[in-house]
Amino acid sequence: MAKVVCFGEIMLRLSPPGYLRFEQATSFDVVYGGGEANVCVSLANYGEEAVFVTKVPDNPIGQAAINEMRRYGVDTRYMIKGGKRLGIYFCEKGASQRASKVVYDRAGSAISQAKREDFDWAKIFAGANWFHFTGITPALGDNVAECVLDAVKAAKEAGLTVSCDLNFRKNLWTSEKAGQVMAQYMPYVDVCIANEEDAEKVFGIKAADTDIIGGKLSHEGYKDVAKQLAERFGFKAVAITLRGSISASDNNWAAMLYKDGEFYFSRNYAIHIVDRVGGGDSFGGGLIYALLNGYSNQDALEFAVAASCLKHTIEGDHNHVTVSEVKALMAGDGSGRVQR
Amino acid sequence: MAKVVCFGEIMLRLSPPGYLRFEQATSFDVVYGGGEANVCVSLANYGEEAVFVTKVPDNPIGQAAINEMRRYGVDTRYMIKGGKRLGIYFCEKGASQRASKVVYDRAGSAISQAKREDFDWAKIFAGANWFHFTGITPALGDNVAECVLDAVKAAKEAGLTVSCDLNFRKNLWTSEKAGQVMAQYMPYVDVCIANEEDAEKVFGIKAADTDIIGGKLSHEGYKDVAKQLAERFGFKAVAITLRGSISASDNNWAAMLYKDGEFYFSRNYAIHIVDRVGGGDSFGGGLIYALLNGYSNQDALEFAVAASCLKHTIEGDHNHVTVSEVKALMAGDGSGRVQR
Amino acid sequence: MAKVVCFGEIMLRLSPPGYLRFEQATSFDVVYGGGEANVCVSLANYGEEAVFVTKVPDNPIGQAAINEMRRYGVDTRYMIKGGKRLGIYFCEKGASQRASKVVYDRAGSAISQAKREDFDWAKIFAGANWFHFTGITPALGDNVAECVLDAVKAAKEAGLTVSCDLNFRKNLWTSEKAGQVMAQYMPYVDVCIANEEDAEKVFGIKAADTDIIGGKLSHEGYKDVAKQLAERFGFKAVAITLRGSISASDNNWAAMLYKDGEFYFSRNYAIHIVDRVGGGDSFGGGLIYALLNGYSNQDALEFAVAASCLKHTIEGDHNHVTVSEVKALMAGDGSGRVQR
Amino acid sequence: MAKVVCFGEIMLRLSPPGYLRFEQATSFDVVYGGGEANVCVSLANYGEEAVFVTKVPDNPIGQAAINEMRRYGVDTRYMIKGGKRLGIYFCEKGASQRASKVVYDRAGSAISQAKREDFDWAKIFAGANWFHFTGITPALGDNVAECVLDAVKAAKEAGLTVSCDLNFRKNLWTSEKAGQVMAQYMPYVDVCIANEEDAEKVFGIKAADTDIIGGKLSHEGYKDVAKQLAERFGFKAVAITLRGSISASDNNWAAMLYKDGEFYFSRNYAIHIVDRVGGGDSFGGGLIYALLNGYSNQDALEFAVAASCLKHTIEGDHNHVTVSEVKALMAGDGSGRVQR
Amino acid sequence: MAKVVCFGEIMLRLSPPGYLRFEQATSFDVVYGGGEANVCVSLANYGEEAVFVTKVPDNPIGQAAINEMRRYGVDTRYMIKGGKRLGIYFCEKGASQRASKVVYDRAGSAISQAKREDFDWAKIFAGANWFHFTGITPALGDNVAECVLDAVKAAKEAGLTVSCDLNFRKNLWTSEKAGQVMAQYMPYVDVCIANEEDAEKVFGIKAADTDIIGGKLSHEGYKDVAKQLAERFGFKAVAITLRGSISASDNNWAAMLYKDGEFYFSRNYAIHIVDRVGGGDSFGGGLIYALLNGYSNQDALEFAVAASCLKHTIEGDHNHVTVSEVKALMAGDGSGRVQR
Amino acid sequence: MAKVVCFGEIMLRLSPPGYLRFEQATSFDVVYGGGEANVCVSLANYGEEAVFVTKVPDNPIGQAAINEMRRYGVDTRYMIKGGKRLGIYFCEKGASQRASKVVYDRAGSAISQAKREDFDWAKIFAGANWFHFTGITPALGDNVAECVLDAVKAAKEAGLTVSCDLNFRKNLWTSEKAGQVMAQYMPYVDVCIANEEDAEKVFGIKAADTDIIGGKLSHEGYKDVAKQLAERFGFKAVAITLRGSISASDNNWAAMLYKDGEFYFSRNYAIHIVDRVGGGDSFGGGLIYALLNGYSNQDALEFAVAASCLKHTIEGDHNHVTVSEVKALMAGDGSGRVQR
Repeated sequence: MAKVVCFGEIMLRLSPPGYLRFEQATSFDVVYGGGEANVCVSLANYGEEAVFVTKVPDNPIGQAAINEMRRYGVDTRYMIKGGKRLGIYFCEKGASQRASKVVYDRAGSAISQAKREDFDWAKIFAGANWFHFTGITPALGDNVAECVLDAVKAAKEAGLTVSCDLNFRKNLWTSEKAGQVMAQYMPYVDVCIANEEDAEKVFGIKAADTDIIGGKLSHEGYKDVAKQLAERFGFKAVAITLRGSISASDNNWAAMLYKDGEFYFSRNYAIHIVDRVGGGDSFGGGLIYALLNGYSNQDALEFAVAASCLKHTIEGDHNHVTVSEVKALMAGDGSGRVQR
Repeated sequence: MAKVVCFGEIMLRLSPPGYLRFEQATSFDVVYGGGEANVCVSLANYGEEAVFVTKVPDNPIGQAAINEMRRYGVDTRYMIKGGKRLGIYFCEKGASQRASKVVYDRAGSAISQAKREDFDWAKIFAGANWFHFTGITPALGDNVAECVLDAVKAAKEAGLTVSCDLNFRKNLWTSEKAGQVMAQYMPYVDVCIANEEDAEKVFGIKAADTDIIGGKLSHEGYKDVAKQLAERFGFKAVAITLRGSISASDNNWAAMLYKDGEFYFSRNYAIHIVDRVGGGDSFGGGLIYALLNGYSNQDALEFAVAASCLKHTIEGDHNHVTVSEVKALMAGDGSGRVQR
Repeated sequence: MAKVVCFGEIMLRLSPPGYLRFEQATSFDVVYGGGEANVCVSLANYGEEAVFVTKVPDNPIGQAAINEMRRYGVDTRYMIKGGKRLGIYFCEKGASQRASKVVYDRAGSAISQAKREDFDWAKIFAGANWFHFTGITPALGDNVAECVLDAVKAAKEAGLTVSCDLNFRKNLWTSEKAGQVMAQYMPYVDVCIANEEDAEKVFGIKAADTDIIGGKLSHEGYKDVAKQLAERFGFKAVAITLRGSISASDNNWAAMLYKDGEFYFSRNYAIHIVDRVGGGDSFGGGLIYALLNGYSNQDALEFAVAASCLKHTIEGDHNHVTVSEVKALMAGDGSGRVQR
Repeated sequence: MAKVVCFGEIMLRLSPPGYLRFEQATSFDVVYGGGEANVCVSLANYGEEAVFVTKVPDNPIGQAAINEMRRYGVDTRYMIKGGKRLGIYFCEKGASQRASKVVYDRAGSAISQAKREDFDWAKIFAGANWFHFTGITPALGDNVAECVLDAVKAAKEAGLTVSCDLNFRKNLWTSEKAGQVMAQYMPYVDVCIANEEDAEKVFGIKAADTDIIGGKLSHEGYKDVAKQLAERFGFKAVAITLRGSISASDNNWAAMLYKDGEFYFSRNYAIHIVDRVGGGDSFGGGLIYALLNGYSNQDALEFAVAASCLKHTIEGDHNHVTVSEVKALMAGDGSGRVQR
Repeated sequence: MAKVVCFGEIMLRLSPPGYLRFEQATSFDVVYGGGEANVCVSLANYGEEAVFVTKVPDNPIGQAAINEMRRYGVDTRYMIKGGKRLGIYFCEKGASQRASKVVYDRAGSAISQAKREDFDWAKIFAGANWFHFTGITPALGDNVAECVLDAVKAAKEAGLTVSCDLNFRKNLWTSEKAGQVMAQYMPYVDVCIANEEDAEKVFGIKAADTDIIGGKLSHEGYKDVAKQLAERFGFKAVAITLRGSISASDNNWAAMLYKDGEFYFSRNYAIHIVDRVGGGDSFGGGLIYALLNGYSNQDALEFAVAASCLKHTIEGDHNHVTVSEVKALMAGDGSGRVQR
Repeated sequence: MAKVVCFGEIMLRLSPPGYLRFEQATSFDVVYGGGEANVCVSLANYGEEAVFVTKVPDNPIGQAAINEMRRYGVDTRYMIKGGKRLGIYFCEKGASQRASKVVYDRAGSAISQAKREDFDWAKIFAGANWFHFTGITPALGDNVAECVLDAVKAAKEAGLTVSCDLNFRKNLWTSEKAGQVMAQYMPYVDVCIANEEDAEKVFGIKAADTDIIGGKLSHEGYKDVAKQLAERFGFKAVAITLRGSISASDNNWAAMLYKDGEFYFSRNYAIHIVDRVGGGDSFGGGLIYALLNGYSNQDALEFAVAASCLKHTIEGDHNHVTVSEVKALMAGDGSGRVQR
């Protein structure tokens, strides 16, 4: 059992039931999630020791966020208490041609007000194997960006593998700011995860223009982006998720991995979506698990993609699947026959 | 901001939750809707001044119908009170090969008992630009049919544009009766809306028989029907919605417009359905909005079709979308990517 | 029909269903309310023209707040849009010895960031008869306190009656600050409403110490407080609500009115509570209605108390009762016999 | 096992969840009930053969009413199909000083349109021991009143005991009409059930005025009413339920029985109410059961009152209790200790 | 109206709402079902006299199972009471690549403890036309297997047609045990129903190996299996359901029938799934109905397949459809157009 | 922070929503609880290190039980996996005169099949301060009774304080068997907890008959029982809870403590009940906390009673309150005023 530490925000997610629009709802379903929190739950579900580091308010809403993480087996001792509020996001589920809609209300959250002295990274990383964060965390504020820098440095010092999901959020910062801040961390990062747009939005890295076919990058284009990323920052591995959005109800889902000088492409899944929020995070969780457990490069990629395929069929931010369920899908059983 | 007046029935709609059948349900979801009421809500959602004219009983159920219309910004001052009951319809949602099922319980509703003196059309139409009604309203009773005649005459006199959705309902009247009554109104109608069957069911207008391919009318057939309608009654515009029912879960959806001597065909949408009730009404609402706001003929049609495509993804009778959401879909973004 | 203007905050209220604690809930019931908003809904339910003035964010959550007010007939044209977020409060319903618990998350709300130029009071007050606000509104920020000062001055200038519910909230400001700010408005106030503690918390006004019996003020004590308030600020009327909290499930409820030099005490109601949030606001709404409609002093008080008694039996912040329902209770029918 | 036949209306009951008012509800809870239907379910729950005779529409709503009766073991073969609609009643649950509210929408129901030839009473009564109806049934229309007359005559001819709950409903007919119609049936009635007001409303029978104490009849007064009823119509037994409405949440509940020349008064129950609709019907069901099963007069009354006490703690119209549960309460166990 | 007797287990089914996983659920939806119980409900829905024979505990959960069967018109007089518990199964609905998951908790159920003397088959079969059971029932225990043997013998003696759905359940017994036990019954069986795997799992009957194309049996392969089954046991008819599992959300569904020396293949349905549990049982129910009612072989097969196609669109174990709904689909109307 | 170990069963509890009876429910609310599990959650909520020892099946239902305990901060590492099923109990909430009803379905549960070698008590008790069990655990089977004997011996050896709640369950064993088995453990027990009946049911200890007043024991009677218990077994403390059941909705609640040769009686609470299951367990949890934290005898008793008073206002088995909430009630604040 490996120990993985994740640092980031956990938010209260409020969603109208079913396919109701915000204005129609008389109740909101409640879950607690966020990029790194979601990765933590994935890893805890796979049986790893997952530690989530954040700051939540000392009130029942903050406690409920802790409880939700505990419920799924995450180590919450470093979900420290303080600050004024838990960040909130409202999430309306789309269908067919109507897109899902997210309204953020995260300004002033406890974690966004956290200070460097809130986290004793040496202590947190004791006995740990891996540290994961996303581009959302430093975007929460300069103070949090400093915490992240402390963390990656301490992680490297302590001999951890460091992974970063670029996860650019235009509501939180500009590409310029993101590029500057994120560049600081990259020297400490071993595994870089990105979706199709992040590399360009954060670091301005584009595929050679000959690679575009029908408005989408070709496989060659993604290879080029991954290679540029790896070369610029010295990553040991670059993973890029490839989402084909047919509609809010149906997506194609695959990924590529660039590692050890080779390019790997996963199988593609045609997914009928239950809840696609957290899809990328579940890919990250799957990839970390597979790499920690000595999977081959191709298998690691397939595990991550199969895991995140399953996430799309699960309500809420978290990916509630077991290793054996992911492996069954990897092995080709996507027929959905009843398991008795 | 234009002012649009709609006249018709609003009913209490009772639906089993999810995909339960009537006999399985221990609760019914409650919304309030009806052909013209739905058009009103569409227009209010687009920012227009929408006035709904009807009669509801002076009891809490009637009040709830008023409240629902107010909630979405409709002017309800002419939802007058009186009569004994609110019409009801029970609506069971279908799936795949199982059709949705509607059980009407609307006899004796307040609006069906309304009298000509209940409505002071000159006052109602003061400052208004458009009047809309459907073929359902006069089918409620001879007295209501008289009210409609009063209304279209007063509307014309007041210089309003008049639109009519033929909307034939075989449970309410025969084709013969419908043809007679509806023909009275047509001289006052500027814009005629129909689905694939209405023209034949109400006015006996069929496409030339050479136009049928594989059981469905060809584009040429619809052109012929639209042209016959326009020529017989002198409509300025005829719009026909084209539904391709693959199953209760999946439909194709498009429309054509005949206006200014030209035929326009919209893009087709392959829709995964959430709730298709009110789909036609949302087309009417979109078309009225677009024509009132100076859209080109092609754009007006595309707006109306995109609006009603989105309706199919929304629970209840009403189309809760904004102009910008419709425009985004018109502009081609039906990929359903999360809007953050 | 009189026109009453209320100015204040409307919040998203999130409540666990039934008697669940925050940590147990997997969904929250959604309503939108706030002190002055609640008074508005009361008045709209009584058939008055109620105008609610506030600022809400230009997002679906702000729109939903507007919709909720529209639903109950409030004039929402001065619920202007802007700012970043809607204030939120989490509300857990207590029972028996367990108190209800409110967690506020209202910092940075759109209304708390409003500026004086956001509101054109002369225009807002055109044709209006009454202006109402509470001590919560100026507590939201110095800028909002300035808006309130503008409002009360403009109201007086326009000849409106002005009422203020002192409503001290210790989370928003200190007694010292409250006393200073509120004192500015009092010269413009005609009708002052307070609960048992507000007069002391805001203005340091206590009953003569001989008046305390068994830890509670006697009738004489309340008379003394009301008289001191009226004399210090020149109010035309002072109303004090008298809550006897037996438990979270059972309360006694009554009030007194000091007006025209006389003291009036209402009947007492022993209430089995459904939802007591908004109880004080419903008293204010009832009192304003009764005074506007020429009730005698005793009847006005009884109407207000009966109205707010009924509020305690209704879910949510708002008091959904009609004038005839309140009058029936005033007339002594609290037996709860089924009305067929 | 005795066979009891009941004849009357079954309606769709629509109730807002919990304590919501009609205007707040976005769903309605669904049950199917009515005076005689409720008596049937009581008797089926006690293990008797209960036959319900009515007419329901041949649509899924009518079928659902049949299903609900079948679910609880009622013989539904004489719930014949035909007519246009099922009667509906909307029922809002009150609390504390707020009364429960019922809105009827039963005009034009299938049973109200039934004809004499719809029911072959000789066949229906074959092998039966008891026939029960209420004053609601003949109030539905002259045609139904004729059906009732057929039924009571046939019942007598077939040697059944006949019981009638007077159940006056002012929305359905006047006291005058009720008096005339009901008087026709009384010669065939053996057991007459009434609440405190029915005797006066239907037959103008009042207690001697010396019997009124504090606005309520004394025991002597009820004795007088019962005796007058029995003497005028020759009833073998008269039962009067005695409800003391403290509030919508708390009631006192007892009854008296006049039989064999003696007066019996039951124990009184102070009830904290869950749902009091159907309380009277559950008394009738209990009384019929006890009389059929040879209980002593005092025990029969106590059984009926205990049964209906329990009904007040059960959601919906029906009384879902077993004989052993009623007997346990009769025996004095109202302490509510957990039964493991 | 024919009388059909089914013998087997009815279980309490507990399902997380919607697409929640077991670990996420805070409530479970409740239905009661089981292979033979589901066939009974199908037949009752088609208007046949359906008798369900089983044993349930004498507690409220057992009673609820009886009530559910009564609700849909099944004759429950032979659902005898005794034993300790009702079998339970937990059922989590899958979606897309995530399979539905069933967790059984049926050990020690009342029916599994039943004894031969519990059932008087001669009495049960009086007036009956058909007896149906599945391979699940004898797998519950040797005692139950003996009851089944009693039943099939008595059925034959009484001249009933006997049908058996092989329904192999690997959790209950081995192929070896199944083969031995089931072989005893086959001489008494007229109609054998199986899915693609049962013939091999129970009796080791495989298609000739040349018949496999792309991992699936060809039509010729199924013919071969059916013929082997018929020849070995002398069945009058063999029906095999053909499920093509694309995913948990989408299935193809068809069947073949071997009867009177001919092979019949049904139309194929591409189904978007609501709930596929009970799909096979609804096929059995449809086939029995059609054979009892003199359908041609092809029509009987088409009826059974159309019926079970519809089942996949209905929540719960039971198939709540009418004969006319099945016939409409058989006639080709799978377009899902709203039925008004 | 003290470490407390509890050993016992955790069950899946299934409850109809609100006040529905089992037969009415179409869903069950889901919680996971049991005597010792409830004590654990209480202690975890108070900030203590609470370890729950049990055996649950290795399936999603067992995992859900673990998750629920983790959610509230309990150390679940000794909730070992194995066995076939999780015990279930069905719990219907009573109201007024209708008692709550519990149907057990716990036979064959994983813990009831546990073996002595499943638990390494020396390891489990490392660093622990307190061990708690109830009379339910040994009643599950002789093997479990042996585990308990191992546990109490090991606990004593490791220097832990041992508490036992006698908790006699007549469905699980007889008084004779209980007396024999429980007597084995008593020498190792320091603190004995019982309700009014346990002492007699388990050990035949009754108060002197002169002590009975009005069917209830007087204070003197309880003193006598406590003293007899302490003297027979050498307990350091005996606590007896005193429940006065007025109805299923209203209870009186108090307790006495016999410790250090003195008798202490707590304040009495008149409770309006939300959910009384787990009331006794929450008393145990409170008492253990208070004794561990050096409260005076009177304060320890008052803490335990106040804690369990609050439990009665909370849904589910567990007591979700904080130390500060309990202290506030101890300090006299039971008025239920809103905490803002």
